[in-house]
Amino acid sequence: MKRLFPSMLMAAAALAGLATALPAAAQFAKPEDAIKYRKNALFVMGTHFGRVAAMANGRIPFDAKMAADNAEIATMMSKLPYVAFIEGTDKGDTKADPKIWAEKDKFNAAATKMQEEMAKLNVVAKGGNIDTIKAAVGETGKSCKACHDAYRKE
Amino acid sequence: MKRLFPSMLMAAAALAGLATALPAAAQFAKPEDAIKYRKNALFVMGTHFGRVAAMANGRIPFDAKMAADNAEIATMMSKLPYVAFIEGTDKGDTKADPKIWAEKDKFNAAATKMQEEMAKLNVVAKGGNIDTIKAAVGETGKSCKACHDAYRKE
Repeated sequence: MKRLFPSMLMAAAALAGLATALPAAAQFAKPEDAIKYRKNALFVMGTHFGRVAAMANGRIPFDAKMAADNAEIATMMSKLPYVAFIEGTDKGDTKADPKIWAEKDKFNAAATKMQEEMAKLNVVAKGGNIDTIKAAVGETGKSCKACHDAYRKE
Repeated sequence: MKRLFPSMLMAAAALAGLATALPAAAQFAKPEDAIKYRKNALFVMGTHFGRVAAMANGRIPFDAKMAADNAEIATMMSKLPYVAFIEGTDKGDTKADPKIWAEKDKFNAAATKMQEEMAKLNVVAKGGNIDTIKAAVGETGKSCKACHDAYRKE
């Protein structure tokens, strides 16, 4: 196990003896683990959303099952990244703007908006109608962009 | 959209006009996209499995809901990486051993073994019994290690 999950074992060692449930921050051993986690989760989400978007935009052929499958995974992935925006993770290998922590409620609202739009896309993707999928892709994409414009540094 | 998903749009452009469903390889624009995708998916999986393992090993306090939630996500994540082990992705920023492609059936069997063990862990994690969770964590960890030992370069 040591070779497989060194960072988790370090986290575990650091936390040994705690008797209460762990707060979100304690789920990551080091700030850079949280940064890597959220970037990785967002990349996987973006890959799957991107495929649905490419179909909606007519850039790749529409395939109803592929759209539904990718929307499902993107929706699941949309739930993961935000627990990792913990205090102290505005530095390092990240484009996260410090504004995120200065206005956390607004940031969380923007994240929630994206999750809601992605969930709506997931529902319509199961319906297989390209026009409704296209509309939902547009709304979801807007919610991605709004958050990036406000909270991602170039 | 262009700012958000440039690699997907490049993939889309490259694929425009195809009239059939896309093979796995065509789901990634460039070999490095496939490499990044599988590494990112494996890292997210490892983070969640690592938390269950840390509880099973007594390194962090056992919390039944946290174990079940993390096992669920790890199981979902376990399904994602393998479609990205496409031909031509043994080079670049990867530790994937070229043996993977020389003996793809054996590699796929090792991947399936891990997915099966993770799915079993997910079932027992919902039961909340730390001893059965511990046993399933052990089997899952062994399946991770077997594949890394055989197919991951140092």
